[in-house]
Amino acid sequence: MPVPAHRAAFGARVRELRTERGWSQEGFAHRAELDRTYVSGIERGTRNPTLDIIYRLAQALGVPAADLLTR
Amino acid sequence: MPVPAHRAAFGARVRELRTERGWSQEGFAHRAELDRTYVSGIERGTRNPTLDIIYRLAQALGVPAADLLTR
Repeated sequence: MPVPAHRAAFGARVRELRTERGWSQEGFAHRAELDRTYVSGIERGTRNPTLDIIYRLAQALGVPAADLLTR
Repeated sequence: MPVPAHRAAFGARVRELRTERGWSQEGFAHRAELDRTYVSGIERGTRNPTLDIIYRLAQALGVPAADLLTR
């Protein structure tokens, strides 16, 4: 099943912000209190995170949640 | 259980945009191809919508998805 464009864009944005901070997926997952494989799935667009998870990711990255949906 | 602030803000933003357009919950739910009770739960902050649903709501409202998370 192809990855919907908005999930791919969301995942790319999360990856962009994570790598800008020099964090590994493991380090970022720990900060966001999520499983590393879940973060990997989000970045690949294979996961469909909820509003709560979106805010948790944004908080861990130190950005407004809207910033993760700007693509 | 109290409604988390980010869910209350999201729900209020969806309601604001819906009522600006003069749409009932029923009318909006039909446009977004969602159940009316689900839209009602989103607006009250009792639902935790996924990324896919957030994009579907935004598309039905004719706004960028990030616009639903600006509060």
